[in-house]
Amino acid sequence: MSVVRVLGVNGSPRKYGNTFKLLTVALRAAAMEGAETKLIHLYDYRIEPCIGCLCDVQESCRYPCVIEDDMRLLYDEVLKADALIIATPIYWYQPSGVVKNFLDRLTALENMIFVDGHSWVEGKVAGVIAAGNDSGLVMAASCLLSTLISMGFMVPPFSMVGFNTEGDALDDPAVVSDAANLGRNVALLAKLVKGFKGVWYDARLKEWGLREAASVREEAARLREKEIAERMKRIGRLLEGSEPRASP
Amino acid sequence: MSVVRVLGVNGSPRKYGNTFKLLTVALRAAAMEGAETKLIHLYDYRIEPCIGCLCDVQESCRYPCVIEDDMRLLYDEVLKADALIIATPIYWYQPSGVVKNFLDRLTALENMIFVDGHSWVEGKVAGVIAAGNDSGLVMAASCLLSTLISMGFMVPPFSMVGFNTEGDALDDPAVVSDAANLGRNVALLAKLVKGFKGVWYDARLKEWGLREAASVREEAARLREKEIAERMKRIGRLLEGSEPRASP
Amino acid sequence: MSVVRVLGVNGSPRKYGNTFKLLTVALRAAAMEGAETKLIHLYDYRIEPCIGCLCDVQESCRYPCVIEDDMRLLYDEVLKADALIIATPIYWYQPSGVVKNFLDRLTALENMIFVDGHSWVEGKVAGVIAAGNDSGLVMAASCLLSTLISMGFMVPPFSMVGFNTEGDALDDPAVVSDAANLGRNVALLAKLVKGFKGVWYDARLKEWGLREAASVREEAARLREKEIAERMKRIGRLLEGSEPRASP
Amino acid sequence: MSVVRVLGVNGSPRKYGNTFKLLTVALRAAAMEGAETKLIHLYDYRIEPCIGCLCDVQESCRYPCVIEDDMRLLYDEVLKADALIIATPIYWYQPSGVVKNFLDRLTALENMIFVDGHSWVEGKVAGVIAAGNDSGLVMAASCLLSTLISMGFMVPPFSMVGFNTEGDALDDPAVVSDAANLGRNVALLAKLVKGFKGVWYDARLKEWGLREAASVREEAARLREKEIAERMKRIGRLLEGSEPRASP
Repeated sequence: MSVVRVLGVNGSPRKYGNTFKLLTVALRAAAMEGAETKLIHLYDYRIEPCIGCLCDVQESCRYPCVIEDDMRLLYDEVLKADALIIATPIYWYQPSGVVKNFLDRLTALENMIFVDGHSWVEGKVAGVIAAGNDSGLVMAASCLLSTLISMGFMVPPFSMVGFNTEGDALDDPAVVSDAANLGRNVALLAKLVKGFKGVWYDARLKEWGLREAASVREEAARLREKEIAERMKRIGRLLEGSEPRASP
Repeated sequence: MSVVRVLGVNGSPRKYGNTFKLLTVALRAAAMEGAETKLIHLYDYRIEPCIGCLCDVQESCRYPCVIEDDMRLLYDEVLKADALIIATPIYWYQPSGVVKNFLDRLTALENMIFVDGHSWVEGKVAGVIAAGNDSGLVMAASCLLSTLISMGFMVPPFSMVGFNTEGDALDDPAVVSDAANLGRNVALLAKLVKGFKGVWYDARLKEWGLREAASVREEAARLREKEIAERMKRIGRLLEGSEPRASP
Repeated sequence: MSVVRVLGVNGSPRKYGNTFKLLTVALRAAAMEGAETKLIHLYDYRIEPCIGCLCDVQESCRYPCVIEDDMRLLYDEVLKADALIIATPIYWYQPSGVVKNFLDRLTALENMIFVDGHSWVEGKVAGVIAAGNDSGLVMAASCLLSTLISMGFMVPPFSMVGFNTEGDALDDPAVVSDAANLGRNVALLAKLVKGFKGVWYDARLKEWGLREAASVREEAARLREKEIAERMKRIGRLLEGSEPRASP
Repeated sequence: MSVVRVLGVNGSPRKYGNTFKLLTVALRAAAMEGAETKLIHLYDYRIEPCIGCLCDVQESCRYPCVIEDDMRLLYDEVLKADALIIATPIYWYQPSGVVKNFLDRLTALENMIFVDGHSWVEGKVAGVIAAGNDSGLVMAASCLLSTLISMGFMVPPFSMVGFNTEGDALDDPAVVSDAANLGRNVALLAKLVKGFKGVWYDARLKEWGLREAASVREEAARLREKEIAERMKRIGRLLEGSEPRASP
């Protein structure tokens, strides 16, 4: 089995703070699991904001993106990787603006589904680290996770890790342990699915699904028939006979 | 390879509406992928709200939960399953209260990490379906996904699916296709990881991580040295010489 | 000016923990601002889950709800209040299931907009407190705030307060200060808007808006004309002449 | 009463699409309510990403920010305004990267609390519009609302409005009506609170709160005494006598 590659993306302008530290722990754990790892700092690259081409012409949003900036280097890093760990500082409960621009621009890989039939990141593995002085960890990480999953990444267990108080994140044994497990799990899952050569979005399921839809609709209608009579008896109670009570 | 089991959990009081329909499409696609499937309606069970035992005594929150209600049946369903698809109606941008109570009560499986060292749901696969008449799909699904990932579930590509307009969800080919792919991916990923017999939270990584921490801290400090001088020159600019401008 | 009433709703099963403490600080600050205050524990009431009547018949969801349980008492508490402070424990990054059921059931007040033309909670003031041992504060509070704002509540400055580490929340001076300011601001804003007797959702603005729409559309079209030519030149670049690069 | 000023901020690169249209309807409604209004396009300004100074030196993050770019113009626009309407496209369930950079940079106004004792945006009014082709409206809007509230803005009823399907947002009468009411409510609330000359974060409440804390703690302890005995009897049930059941 060939080696898996894990790309760590650091989205903090303070390049060697808690975000870096937790990401480094994760990448070292991934390496211990046999992965090749690489860490890049987004603040070292010039990443212009997305200009929303796909709203004008869906298929115009495609690799390598019409904007000629450092994302071209980053696209290739992402394409080479089997797994991605995004480590973001928590800025106002969300990823930093730079991480957001990076995400928005990744659309050029995801949107290939409209060009050649599949997202170019599908089947890759992702984990998320979020670090800040204050609350917002889950909000920031959830924004990232739901996006990554929609783009076609898969997410291993326990792969949302963070730190949201002041001080050195490495002083917190639970957080260190969580970051290490995240790195290991990202590499481990990438290895487990590496052999799979099929697709993760099977366009033929649309046809199949629409054929099934008829019988699903029928089944639902039949089952609902009994339910609805009972529900309507209950639901209608306040509608009968009287005007709604005046508002206070 | 033994068959995988996929449990579909329907959290809607309207038992045969869009939530059911999309869940059924997903389960049929999982079955086509070789899974055994089962659909249950949460509204058929009496699920009392969590009473937060773990805040008083961490290890008192454990299977089968001190509350003697129908969750005892549901715990066993979840334990038997390799994968879980939670289908929720979107009530105020979140899962319904019943789904939330179900989630809160699942803590008795996750919190086993404090009793016998690992979450009893770790390594299971999960997907999320959310259906409603109005917006809130992503918020509701993200609440579920971040929770499931933290509990130890893994999440396959494209496994956040929903419908948030009026009408029959089965009339929307893209949504039908998405639900089918979700069901297939949940089963597929469960099959791909089924052979893995290790743990997904390796407690020994805490010790390892703390040993690594020293050198990570050192590396960060060394790299930061150069960065900080430059940063401070820039950062301090507004602090020099003058009072802050009066507020308007 | 008549006195304002502030209702504090405690959603924790541990009735006298951090949720209670922060809520009590907030209510005392509200009282100092001249408000009448009252604290209720949701776990003292029997609150059945919403059964989603409005999806079957929109206007059947109305005060006092077809479900005959203790929400009938709570509806009247909410209707009497000028302001609401919801204090929830953080359970899996969201409000507790009991708080969620309470919210879902409040729909019977909000949905009066389809019965007599306005939400019965519109113009009331709301603040949110979330307390837990772990992260999720912002996610839980945001779920509540976005819901309350959509229902017709208004939200004063700094009215999202929480605590998400272990220990006694009252030992953290910043959190105590935040809770006090939340309570004061909720009462203060309720006083400032008390004199306003108009509506906060003016249905006549629909007609007005649709009339304006024509000229807005025209203005947008005119301005867009120049923009689109330039955009298309840029956007189309990758579409010209060549096949999309093969996927990796 | 002097006139109120409402600043509309358009965060879309497609400057005259749905985001613009809904924002324009809102601003016209605000004008009808007597406000002076102004619309700016963020994509017309050069906004560098935040570099996180406050994590190094808290009070170094202050107006007018060490970064010398077009935010200096935007800070002054925000300071002059009584109310802000942020209209963002929905990019991956969140505000666009440009809106995020704008938000992050607003910290220089909010963080004045550490310089001269109060957030320079406190007491201003805010509303949020989010427009996209797909889901994510509530997630994107909630990110913005929770941030704005934490910064010191207040939020009127119904001030989270959006559109998340394809087509012209102005063709949807409900959305047009919502946008108009948002604009009106933002102006209306700004007028209602305009006369208030006090502060919205009273630092003296920290001292007061800490004095109250003693008696709150005492009250909680006293009430908890009865509760805890009963809880422990219930909670401890699974801990007694037996080993935890083996995991499956």
